[in-house]
Amino acid sequence: MNAPVSPGAWSQRAARRQRRLERASALARGKRVEAGQLVALLEAVLEPEDRVCLEGNNQKQADFLARGLTQVDPQRVHDLHMVQSVLALPEHLDVFERGIARKLDFSFSGPQALRLAGLLARGQLQIGAIHTYLELFSRYFIDLTPQVSLIAAHSADAQGNLFTGPNTEDTPAIVEATAFSGGIVIAQVNEWVDTVPRVDVPAGWVDFIVQAPKPNVIEPLFTRDPAQISEVQVLMAMMAIKGIYAEYGVQRLNHGIGFDTAAIELLLPTYAESLGLKGKICQHWALNPHPALIPAIEAGWVQSIHSFGSELGMEDYIRARSDVFFTGPDGSLRSHRAFCQAAGHYACDLFIGSTLQMDLAGNSSTATAGRIAGFGGAPNMGADARGRRHASPAWLKAGEQARQGLPGARGTPRGQKLVVQMVETFREHMQPAFVEHLDAWRLAEQAGMDLPPIMIYGEDVTHVLTEEGLANLLLCRTDEEREQAIRGVAGYTPVGLARDARMVENLRDRGIIQRPADLGVDPRDATRNLLAARSVRDLVRASGGLYRPPTRFRNW
Amino acid sequence: MNAPVSPGAWSQRAARRQRRLERASALARGKRVEAGQLVALLEAVLEPEDRVCLEGNNQKQADFLARGLTQVDPQRVHDLHMVQSVLALPEHLDVFERGIARKLDFSFSGPQALRLAGLLARGQLQIGAIHTYLELFSRYFIDLTPQVSLIAAHSADAQGNLFTGPNTEDTPAIVEATAFSGGIVIAQVNEWVDTVPRVDVPAGWVDFIVQAPKPNVIEPLFTRDPAQISEVQVLMAMMAIKGIYAEYGVQRLNHGIGFDTAAIELLLPTYAESLGLKGKICQHWALNPHPALIPAIEAGWVQSIHSFGSELGMEDYIRARSDVFFTGPDGSLRSHRAFCQAAGHYACDLFIGSTLQMDLAGNSSTATAGRIAGFGGAPNMGADARGRRHASPAWLKAGEQARQGLPGARGTPRGQKLVVQMVETFREHMQPAFVEHLDAWRLAEQAGMDLPPIMIYGEDVTHVLTEEGLANLLLCRTDEEREQAIRGVAGYTPVGLARDARMVENLRDRGIIQRPADLGVDPRDATRNLLAARSVRDLVRASGGLYRPPTRFRNW
Repeated sequence: MNAPVSPGAWSQRAARRQRRLERASALARGKRVEAGQLVALLEAVLEPEDRVCLEGNNQKQADFLARGLTQVDPQRVHDLHMVQSVLALPEHLDVFERGIARKLDFSFSGPQALRLAGLLARGQLQIGAIHTYLELFSRYFIDLTPQVSLIAAHSADAQGNLFTGPNTEDTPAIVEATAFSGGIVIAQVNEWVDTVPRVDVPAGWVDFIVQAPKPNVIEPLFTRDPAQISEVQVLMAMMAIKGIYAEYGVQRLNHGIGFDTAAIELLLPTYAESLGLKGKICQHWALNPHPALIPAIEAGWVQSIHSFGSELGMEDYIRARSDVFFTGPDGSLRSHRAFCQAAGHYACDLFIGSTLQMDLAGNSSTATAGRIAGFGGAPNMGADARGRRHASPAWLKAGEQARQGLPGARGTPRGQKLVVQMVETFREHMQPAFVEHLDAWRLAEQAGMDLPPIMIYGEDVTHVLTEEGLANLLLCRTDEEREQAIRGVAGYTPVGLARDARMVENLRDRGIIQRPADLGVDPRDATRNLLAARSVRDLVRASGGLYRPPTRFRNW
Repeated sequence: MNAPVSPGAWSQRAARRQRRLERASALARGKRVEAGQLVALLEAVLEPEDRVCLEGNNQKQADFLARGLTQVDPQRVHDLHMVQSVLALPEHLDVFERGIARKLDFSFSGPQALRLAGLLARGQLQIGAIHTYLELFSRYFIDLTPQVSLIAAHSADAQGNLFTGPNTEDTPAIVEATAFSGGIVIAQVNEWVDTVPRVDVPAGWVDFIVQAPKPNVIEPLFTRDPAQISEVQVLMAMMAIKGIYAEYGVQRLNHGIGFDTAAIELLLPTYAESLGLKGKICQHWALNPHPALIPAIEAGWVQSIHSFGSELGMEDYIRARSDVFFTGPDGSLRSHRAFCQAAGHYACDLFIGSTLQMDLAGNSSTATAGRIAGFGGAPNMGADARGRRHASPAWLKAGEQARQGLPGARGTPRGQKLVVQMVETFREHMQPAFVEHLDAWRLAEQAGMDLPPIMIYGEDVTHVLTEEGLANLLLCRTDEEREQAIRGVAGYTPVGLARDARMVENLRDRGIIQRPADLGVDPRDATRNLLAARSVRDLVRASGGLYRPPTRFRNW
């Protein structure tokens, strides 16, 4: 694999590209390939051991190409090395089961996590590494450059220019790496059109285009029904707003996916407004178009949102709110996961997300035994950006708290990103969120990983927020303080019950632990009435009918 | 500035764009504007307080547009907020002197550093912040989105598709942020053509195009004449190869600009080859096309290079070595600073660069009093990527050395990037490279900065390499050890002379400090004869005549 290049032969890549194109030439008119010819095209283009990016995004899927890939003859096409961010469809694993692919480098496998672990255990698949999104895209330009990419777009014109629609997502990063390294780009589109609404991918970067029989699969992953937000979540959201957002003056941020952060979004035009925080927090976002943010947008809270991907049903709303979203001249969203991840990493002051388990050092993980779920974008968002040099009040204050009084290199002044883990002390089925040892350690052993799959490292976490209180880890000066700060908000979990009560009280006196009352939050005020929308229908109403939720979210 | 959005008016941005286009419409035929109309176009399009990105790259400059901008009427266009990565041309500061622009957010101002400090001191300019490149691009999508961008390309076709040529550099990031946020993109090109060799920027993303009277300025910043490499630099390069590259098995890396790293590049096919390291180190690079890397490429050392920008004179060589470089279907380089910076951050295991000053905590800076030079890409490359999750042997080993025996959060296993500072103990005019206090502190005070402009933080530095030896800071366990490790390689500088000799010997016994002899490097072998090329002419010869250096580098 790491054999030195043999000097002298310098256009092997171009020659290989030429051979692929020649083998495929009979199957295409120009770039155009009929759907019935897809399998033949793939067999003509692909060679054993190719690195292949089958566009699996967080939302949009090149599902027709995925199905086609499962149908190639494993005698001809085998030992592929798949390099794709998301494993969402069964087909993404079928290629391993059928002996077409062998090695996998990826970022997230949510829906396929269980089956992935099974394939690995049975030796039908070999994992290179699990990445965060931007990290995998970065390797596309260094040592995981795809030789063939199979991407999804909305439409194509006769020249081959592609319109991705609102879900551009990973496409630019994939195409850039493949088209400019002598690779082959094959796109599936929903339709051929005379003129694309806008060019998302220029024709010259694409080799073959096939119209799929059905529009590509897109999942509305970022829609949270406000009806399911609990009053505990309202309480935690109040504490987040008062204890963190207001305290640090957070203007630029990213929210994870989940009901906890949806609650925060829905409290901005109500609770946060009552605190006089409008204009002082939450103006700039790296975020998918969360429907839960509609009331805040409508109330004038939000100046800008740049998005990784889009969200089904939000198309008309986005078009009508183009002052806030990044849109093309056609009015539809232009998302871009690579740039949005970079923005989340370098231009946001706060990430707030949730986790399944946290240990006493503050390390957290969503890994559970027998499931290899991957990381998605959280580690990139939830890590201090050590290369950052521009200051903001929030970043400076966090850095100052972390470094005050420390000597030497660790004491050199520098800002720090706010990384908040927001968890109820018990998750569903009464599983404690706080544990002595993460399941990640066991999974690492099972799956032969170099390191346990930790989502957010304790070193990077600045605050832990539960219904019991808010722990500011920035202010802890010893491992013991840190441990007790975590125990001190871990409620009735075994970890919480084992706290040193005296030390926890001391931490509270020092403001390292804050209870709701310390923050001036009265739990009796934490009712669902505070939510700016209490149902999907409310969100639709708030949007003036512009938001059109997918059927599964409609019950009226 | 942070005034809340007033609800109700949701297409202000689109309306503003429309007004700008209407005011400019009489000046353009389609997108085409004559050079003589440029100033009128800028006056028509620009509005006071606009955020403007005037494409100043590391190499390529939109110089004609820059000149035009200095000529607009400050009564009409004033208080612009410039958001551009590099201040390279006098015009980039003239706009402040002339009252056209007022605020500046940037990354690097090398050639204008002195004048920039003067303007700041006289209150003619206000600095928002100094960024690393990727960080500034990231803010383009969050809170520094340009309303107008003035970019440089090589050619345009009648539709308005742009070909940037090998120096794509910042263009994709700038255009993406501007074109998809209702902004205006104005491009200067060297020529109009029937068909662009390839589309680097689709026509739909560009509003106006003007042909400049002269081709845009490009600087060959990455050419180092091997004739100027000293034997001390050869010695240090040998130590880097043996003590770091071989020791950690570094396959993916980025080199800073300078003679120190050029020496390493020129020792790969000679010294490193003699150590049997071919194929074991240095196969994948995030790097501009350094001419000094030609001999290593020719000897088959290099598998891939992805580039931030290009380098003058390397065009034909790149075209003929397309297996190694990222090129378009036209055969010329496709560079991309944003993706390459991401790749350097997330997909490289080592950054090695130089500095002007280092303190006892290992913090280093190129800042000197009275000059505001900025950061460029170094802080991004020279920082541990805390969001990284994929493993490599080099990264794992560095992480293990750093964390061995540490308790709690700091001891949780995780990899670490190798960040090497390579400096001679004295730089020119016998200025010591090691100091008790960085000049950066004084500059911060002078210029009213929130933090001293530290290029690489001591917390992120893993190795310090001088002609006296190699200090491995990963293995230090206390601030005192770290300080003595630095003093122990600081030679005859006052910092070096103040070492605790006994402690330094102890660090040497523990392998934390290694002298050349400890590494098996004999200084007597460190002659210029080891360099695979000893002159620019040698580089040309090694390239088979494909490399055509600019005149200033030719003395034959």
